[in-house]
Amino acid sequence: MSELLWQKPGVKVDARIQHFLAGEDVILDREFFLFDIQASLAHAEGLLRIGILGADELAGIRVELDALADDWQSGAFVLDERYEDCHSAIESRLVERLGDAGRRIHTGRSRNDQILVATRLWLKDRLARMQALCVEAAEVALARAEAEAAVPLPGYTHLQRAVVSSLGMWWAAWAEGFIDDAHRARDTLAWVDANPLGSAAGYGVNLPLDRDHTTQALGFGRLQVSATYAQLSRGKFEMAAIEALSSALLDLRRLAWDLSLFTSAEYAFVALPSQYTTGSSIMPNKRNPDVIELMRATYASAAAARTEIEQLLSLPSGYHRDLQFSKGAIVHAFGRGLGALELLPDLLRNLEWKPEAMRAALDPSMYATDLAVDLAREGLPFREAYKQAADPARWAEGDPDASLQARVSPGAAAGLRLDALRARLRTE
Amino acid sequence: MSELLWQKPGVKVDARIQHFLAGEDVILDREFFLFDIQASLAHAEGLLRIGILGADELAGIRVELDALADDWQSGAFVLDERYEDCHSAIESRLVERLGDAGRRIHTGRSRNDQILVATRLWLKDRLARMQALCVEAAEVALARAEAEAAVPLPGYTHLQRAVVSSLGMWWAAWAEGFIDDAHRARDTLAWVDANPLGSAAGYGVNLPLDRDHTTQALGFGRLQVSATYAQLSRGKFEMAAIEALSSALLDLRRLAWDLSLFTSAEYAFVALPSQYTTGSSIMPNKRNPDVIELMRATYASAAAARTEIEQLLSLPSGYHRDLQFSKGAIVHAFGRGLGALELLPDLLRNLEWKPEAMRAALDPSMYATDLAVDLAREGLPFREAYKQAADPARWAEGDPDASLQARVSPGAAAGLRLDALRARLRTE
Amino acid sequence: MSELLWQKPGVKVDARIQHFLAGEDVILDREFFLFDIQASLAHAEGLLRIGILGADELAGIRVELDALADDWQSGAFVLDERYEDCHSAIESRLVERLGDAGRRIHTGRSRNDQILVATRLWLKDRLARMQALCVEAAEVALARAEAEAAVPLPGYTHLQRAVVSSLGMWWAAWAEGFIDDAHRARDTLAWVDANPLGSAAGYGVNLPLDRDHTTQALGFGRLQVSATYAQLSRGKFEMAAIEALSSALLDLRRLAWDLSLFTSAEYAFVALPSQYTTGSSIMPNKRNPDVIELMRATYASAAAARTEIEQLLSLPSGYHRDLQFSKGAIVHAFGRGLGALELLPDLLRNLEWKPEAMRAALDPSMYATDLAVDLAREGLPFREAYKQAADPARWAEGDPDASLQARVSPGAAAGLRLDALRARLRTE
Amino acid sequence: MSELLWQKPGVKVDARIQHFLAGEDVILDREFFLFDIQASLAHAEGLLRIGILGADELAGIRVELDALADDWQSGAFVLDERYEDCHSAIESRLVERLGDAGRRIHTGRSRNDQILVATRLWLKDRLARMQALCVEAAEVALARAEAEAAVPLPGYTHLQRAVVSSLGMWWAAWAEGFIDDAHRARDTLAWVDANPLGSAAGYGVNLPLDRDHTTQALGFGRLQVSATYAQLSRGKFEMAAIEALSSALLDLRRLAWDLSLFTSAEYAFVALPSQYTTGSSIMPNKRNPDVIELMRATYASAAAARTEIEQLLSLPSGYHRDLQFSKGAIVHAFGRGLGALELLPDLLRNLEWKPEAMRAALDPSMYATDLAVDLAREGLPFREAYKQAADPARWAEGDPDASLQARVSPGAAAGLRLDALRARLRTE
Repeated sequence: MSELLWQKPGVKVDARIQHFLAGEDVILDREFFLFDIQASLAHAEGLLRIGILGADELAGIRVELDALADDWQSGAFVLDERYEDCHSAIESRLVERLGDAGRRIHTGRSRNDQILVATRLWLKDRLARMQALCVEAAEVALARAEAEAAVPLPGYTHLQRAVVSSLGMWWAAWAEGFIDDAHRARDTLAWVDANPLGSAAGYGVNLPLDRDHTTQALGFGRLQVSATYAQLSRGKFEMAAIEALSSALLDLRRLAWDLSLFTSAEYAFVALPSQYTTGSSIMPNKRNPDVIELMRATYASAAAARTEIEQLLSLPSGYHRDLQFSKGAIVHAFGRGLGALELLPDLLRNLEWKPEAMRAALDPSMYATDLAVDLAREGLPFREAYKQAADPARWAEGDPDASLQARVSPGAAAGLRLDALRARLRTE
Repeated sequence: MSELLWQKPGVKVDARIQHFLAGEDVILDREFFLFDIQASLAHAEGLLRIGILGADELAGIRVELDALADDWQSGAFVLDERYEDCHSAIESRLVERLGDAGRRIHTGRSRNDQILVATRLWLKDRLARMQALCVEAAEVALARAEAEAAVPLPGYTHLQRAVVSSLGMWWAAWAEGFIDDAHRARDTLAWVDANPLGSAAGYGVNLPLDRDHTTQALGFGRLQVSATYAQLSRGKFEMAAIEALSSALLDLRRLAWDLSLFTSAEYAFVALPSQYTTGSSIMPNKRNPDVIELMRATYASAAAARTEIEQLLSLPSGYHRDLQFSKGAIVHAFGRGLGALELLPDLLRNLEWKPEAMRAALDPSMYATDLAVDLAREGLPFREAYKQAADPARWAEGDPDASLQARVSPGAAAGLRLDALRARLRTE
Repeated sequence: MSELLWQKPGVKVDARIQHFLAGEDVILDREFFLFDIQASLAHAEGLLRIGILGADELAGIRVELDALADDWQSGAFVLDERYEDCHSAIESRLVERLGDAGRRIHTGRSRNDQILVATRLWLKDRLARMQALCVEAAEVALARAEAEAAVPLPGYTHLQRAVVSSLGMWWAAWAEGFIDDAHRARDTLAWVDANPLGSAAGYGVNLPLDRDHTTQALGFGRLQVSATYAQLSRGKFEMAAIEALSSALLDLRRLAWDLSLFTSAEYAFVALPSQYTTGSSIMPNKRNPDVIELMRATYASAAAARTEIEQLLSLPSGYHRDLQFSKGAIVHAFGRGLGALELLPDLLRNLEWKPEAMRAALDPSMYATDLAVDLAREGLPFREAYKQAADPARWAEGDPDASLQARVSPGAAAGLRLDALRARLRTE
Repeated sequence: MSELLWQKPGVKVDARIQHFLAGEDVILDREFFLFDIQASLAHAEGLLRIGILGADELAGIRVELDALADDWQSGAFVLDERYEDCHSAIESRLVERLGDAGRRIHTGRSRNDQILVATRLWLKDRLARMQALCVEAAEVALARAEAEAAVPLPGYTHLQRAVVSSLGMWWAAWAEGFIDDAHRARDTLAWVDANPLGSAAGYGVNLPLDRDHTTQALGFGRLQVSATYAQLSRGKFEMAAIEALSSALLDLRRLAWDLSLFTSAEYAFVALPSQYTTGSSIMPNKRNPDVIELMRATYASAAAARTEIEQLLSLPSGYHRDLQFSKGAIVHAFGRGLGALELLPDLLRNLEWKPEAMRAALDPSMYATDLAVDLAREGLPFREAYKQAADPARWAEGDPDASLQARVSPGAAAGLRLDALRARLRTE
């Protein structure tokens, strides 16, 4: 490993311990590398504005940071065990190429606010991506709700047949769910959109850092004012981001459950294109909906990541090394979570319904509620109407289309109000 | 128990099983009773508007619901094991007093949307209370940040002495934290502020329910459009509310940790008024800061409640009885959580600092960072300045007041920007 | 409230704070009251043995503790807000009735070890109950596995039809599962079966307490030796107990899932006796398997309780008030968990299979694996046999009974080895 | 990627979907590769015993599996994206080298039982390692308890000074804790020590597989009898293993908390060798106990892994692809957990106490409990003695050594009973 930034004479280093300390840091830091470069440049610009760097020095730093970013993207530079972390790697490069200008870059900065700002930018990027994917999923769902509004689908409660439902109602539910999720992603993005750079190790520095400049240069919505709170927000903001992601993954879990049932032979309401299925190593007859199952399972990874951070945060104020484990957690959650959401819009587009099977699963009891309400509308007190409609002798093969057309309560089959959902979606 | 609403001829009832099914429902439903009455009235008004109820019937219902609410508040009516749940209790009362008008109240409604709307109103109430308490805590913190801005306090990282900090910085951190938490409560309240009443069992009804009226009458910000999504949002919205609460409780946990250390003999930075302490049954010498410890522990209850709901939500769409357990969870989380937050503003007001002890805990090494930055400002590259300042021979007893006055980076001791925090607080 | 044991002159008491501190302690302590009485007697016997109590005093204490237990069981004594907790209530009673003998009972004891020993005895009791219920469930499953061994049932993977299975295989799976769970309950009971009484506040006392006597008198398997570890085991042992319980509830969750599917109209493999179902308030046609759903949901309550304790345990050694919240957690977990397990054996006895529906759900593809293996047995390399058997042209209506009779691998339909399971069960 | 085992004509493959499906499988499978080879050989031996393989074929398979294991260990063979998973890689190699013998290896086996047996062997290996590390930690703690038995240490409750304690008591607590943890590892290892190989896809096969042979050849303690339960135990057994690990990590978390406080300037009871510390990038004065903090944080990783699996297991019986995510979870938990435990024995050996600082932190109030008990032994009722001893006027500078010598209750400073702990340790 290259020299440790903080190394001092007389301090022993034990390889096994260093290995434990480093963990997967250099691997994980690959996620944050470009954001760290971006924030390093903003910091350097700020140093120019307060006279710590000269214009030539800043120009040199800008050139070298750009070159490093290029080397990164081309693969010419790889972040590996030679470095303690991404911060050391960047500083080393600048020192190596620029000498004293490189040795000045860390003035007024700590790795504490450096990782804070890099992960903050990363979280914003991921939340924006999540938001866009939820919007896209909602758009597909809305379009299909409109196109297939009138197709009957059995409606269940307790997994028992309840009343006639429709594809319009089914799709609209997911549309409204993913609109809510997109909205939450946006709220959360705005909530975490605060610049921690310039808080140093949590107590600021004896320099008039131009934090307003870095806030603006990095595109943050506001300054995270308190230097001490910047540290307290580590983990707290990460958890909020994972919770927003989990909101969408929770809906995905329930959607995948529906599809898991609907693609079974017992329901047979949906056919999946073959690319969404895999086979078995022993059973020649199997085509399994693995994609749907892994989508369902993805919630677990976000939940795990949230747990990992939550378990770290029973600490007094101030930075503690425990917080390092929050990096792996967010990478795991968003890696798996966005991976699943990215496949969702196409999956929704590709679902093939089997309307005959859906109609065949409607049975006479499923019109009993319609009947009770009809009786109530004609004047019978509902509690009495309910009793009459509970008599199986009064159940008969019904007309699902008529049932749906009569379902006029707002949000039901004949009153879907897709326009209202579309209007909300446009604001996301 | 009074007759079950859904009882049918030939259906056996087993007492042990009924006991298992009922669980603590009637106890828990006490939390939601008044909200259920409120929503029942709005529903009845809606039924008048579509001709299911006559004006006299509605008037009777209004009188009886008001009377029931009065009886509830006076203790004349108690919700207990005579009833299956709060919904049955209310309907029974109306039937008993009003006959057919009572038998009509449930037209177009299911217990599914009834509990949804009652818990939604309850959640809104609790989130508003949480928001107000966070604002109050932030106000106290801001006021004390201003009043005690210049008092030196050791600043720690890794629980090791790092640099000189100040009460101004400490208080400002909690102020910004609780402002964020208040903001999140508000975001979350707006997010869940959607009316599920009129979604029936998740599939709507064959009646033109006036859901816009109930949305407005109950003070909701919007209609929860999709009848099927209303069910999908059960648990999802509860989790979001608990997550918002947990954000404040997480800050409280870390604040309590600071106070737990600061009130120890080893730190002795803070004295707690005696009403915040208790004694030991065996050790005559003890005064223990139990209040602080239970505040720290409260996060656990919210986390437990969140887990309870999260574990339920791996389900296909549609209502399932599993969701019943979400009621106890939110009551547990907000009961404990608001109980702790309610004591917080006064606790913050009552903290008594020991400035001499705080000064005594400052040691010469804590000025090394100031020195390094000073050297850097004078032109030495920071990495070189760091090396020089790492030499203990250069550490000397410093002047904490001077150190704080020089800490001019925004958000640090000499640049607290309390006005910026105050401005954000005013918008909450 | 009666006088606080630890009250001292000049210490203010604030009603709102006392309310927060007390929480639900007196309600929860009702669970532990009789165990506290039992342990108090053992402690008093120990005090006699080291000369702190006289024989007359012990006799008086014994009489009064017995009387209090009787009053408890008859309802003549109720633990309520008059007391700080169960420990204070018992000591108060002894002082009131016996004077100085009562004032001696707490010699060498702290409420810390008092609650430890009471909850330890409670946990042992609950684990033994759990163990017995798992054994009973396994017995029913084994009996039905034998009786219904040859009845064909579709076997699924990924919820897709895979191969022919049997009721014998289905029941045997749950039998082995609950045997494992019973075994784990026993292991866990043995693991926590250590006497903490006599550890005082975690540092012992300057008295030769006869801890070997109390260990034996209370029926503990061993002394929990270290006074300091006794405190460290608080929460740790509770979590282990909940984890053992959760192991059974996890199996119950999956069993309930099977039944939830099997009782749906789409599968229709199982009929539930009507006492296991409830109706809907709006849909006259519904009979819902609520019992099964709440059994499935019960895992969530144990998971919540585990989370609650886990979140408390990031603490230095020594007692902290945070740990108080572990009491409510174990009561919640075992209350719900044992409540569900108690209904399980009868539910299993009462399941009514629909063999025709199960046969009807077998389709030709489900013999393809048999065919591939048959070809392999005849000499074709399996990978080649697999390819041939993957050809739908080779699939034909099969004979499920023949398929099951040929399934001779140990643990499969024709080789269930129920005797091996029965032998293990006898050792539980 | 090499040809998919289950590929069929007409099935489309989408690269993005395949990437999502594969996830990190080939990376994770590196953990299980050698165990899969070992189990593959046992399976092949079993196939010989029932006539599916000839002796020559088995000999060839043995040679090639050995060669593959060698290539693996030398790095000549790398498991990477060319393969779908470790199972496919091994089978491909055998087919490539041996032709039809290779094509026969999968007879009567599914990837379902193949991964079950490989992970089972892996879990046993890791639990044995955990057990050995807990034993080693307990040995160090016992040795130091004996060597430093008489050194006074302040005893705390609620982080408040309570009574005089000793290093003997402190070390003995951790000794007993890690003995319990070792015991639990052993119980858990025995509990999961059941052979799932031969259960195929959960329904067995139409072949008389010699499962007793594979059970013995692979060193399992028993056959996991039911083929269907083998699948149900997936995740359940993994969770139990993580829970056992977490028990040790929970103790480690609390131990690390003690050390985190003890190495602070405010306590200054312990010095850490410099190799256990790191520096700061900005603060030249810092030496931070990062190793201790990451040890404390490690619990979080195990908790996360447990959550990940727990969240997957709300499923009907039978294999589901969701379960794949349990692989990454156990690798994460045991990777981090054993990494931390491996550093523990040396850390314990290397702790350097500062007895003067420990003595200096004892204050007069800490003898009040001794006094109360002394008065009680002389005949005063304890509750009266407590009141007298609560008077600060009666507190005076005490003699810690005398206090410790008088602490004769079993498990306290003068009655540590290390022999009893040593005896238990010998049986682990």
